[in-house]
Amino acid sequence: MMKAKVKKKAASKRRAFVRGEPVVRGVLSATIEELSRVGYERMRIEDVAARAGVNKTTVYRRFTTKEELVRAALMGVTRGATTAPNTGSLRGDLLEHMRRKVSRVSSPEGQMVVRMLAAEPSDSELFTIAKSIHKAHASVPRSILESAAARGELAPGVDASLLIDILRSAVRDRIVFRREPVDDRFLERVVDLLLHGALRSGGGREPPA
Amino acid sequence: MMKAKVKKKAASKRRAFVRGEPVVRGVLSATIEELSRVGYERMRIEDVAARAGVNKTTVYRRFTTKEELVRAALMGVTRGATTAPNTGSLRGDLLEHMRRKVSRVSSPEGQMVVRMLAAEPSDSELFTIAKSIHKAHASVPRSILESAAARGELAPGVDASLLIDILRSAVRDRIVFRREPVDDRFLERVVDLLLHGALRSGGGREPPA
Repeated sequence: MMKAKVKKKAASKRRAFVRGEPVVRGVLSATIEELSRVGYERMRIEDVAARAGVNKTTVYRRFTTKEELVRAALMGVTRGATTAPNTGSLRGDLLEHMRRKVSRVSSPEGQMVVRMLAAEPSDSELFTIAKSIHKAHASVPRSILESAAARGELAPGVDASLLIDILRSAVRDRIVFRREPVDDRFLERVVDLLLHGALRSGGGREPPA
Repeated sequence: MMKAKVKKKAASKRRAFVRGEPVVRGVLSATIEELSRVGYERMRIEDVAARAGVNKTTVYRRFTTKEELVRAALMGVTRGATTAPNTGSLRGDLLEHMRRKVSRVSSPEGQMVVRMLAAEPSDSELFTIAKSIHKAHASVPRSILESAAARGELAPGVDASLLIDILRSAVRDRIVFRREPVDDRFLERVVDLLLHGALRSGGGREPPA
């Protein structure tokens, strides 16, 4: 038990974004670390348990398969907040949504996950799990866009879901490839460009093709 | 010589985006493949030569250091076209610029490079080389934006270089993380959103913060 405690303390920083009871948090963090070290194929639940300082039956009691364990670990790191922001404007909601996302993706665990996924073959099981989690998290951006539409903020015919996709890409790309910090100033610049567009107004909006 | 020929033929598909004389093309392609296989640290010029089916003195005659060789190989894959498109509109120029970029990044060699870079530590020599190449390629987007400004297409105070950065991020992220094809339709959707913005016009452009 002492050993488990010491290990837990050492890794506590990395665990800031994995929620739940402490033992589960430790197991999920250890899962990300093992995944990052050996990859999905070679990851063994025994090694995860050892790294978390728990008995492997403790892991199996909660997660019956490797897939279930990995899914829970990725959910902890990559999930959107479960409630949509409600600031009263599309701009405010997008900024708030992205701030939450940035703090997850910028965490050491978040970075491990995105780098792993970048290297993973498209047909791998890990990639499939990640894709299904991505889909499961679509409700928050959907709700942000629905509120904006209800307030009459969106231009007619605008491709609103693309707005969220581009925002996400800009943030992830900056973290993974540019290695530059995503601060509030950067988020505001991206959001404002996407909301207002680069063209001088008066040229008229072209109808979507 | 026969061996070299056979090897060259087998890898010819991957070499579509590396330009120059055939021997140099073969060496640069082999460099990308070796980099992808063992990483920058462990890559040896001897192994590159063997993979390209040439004598190592052939490589050393043109590239005196590993850094020089790797820089040339990355330039071949990641460089922008050396002349800016000139279609007469910002929209046309952006689409043409991105089409060229997509065909490079989507090639097998382009994909090897982006995945390698995603996994590379920020302080690595390979990452430093890639960053300096990125800077060296900035003249084409700069010229696109200058032409647009000269035509009076850009809104006052708009963050034009960010426009190019966001476009690039959207494309790279889609290829690396979503593994979805970047076709003309996708490019048009992204460019049109960035040019026109998502907000209903008439709300007025907010001054940049």
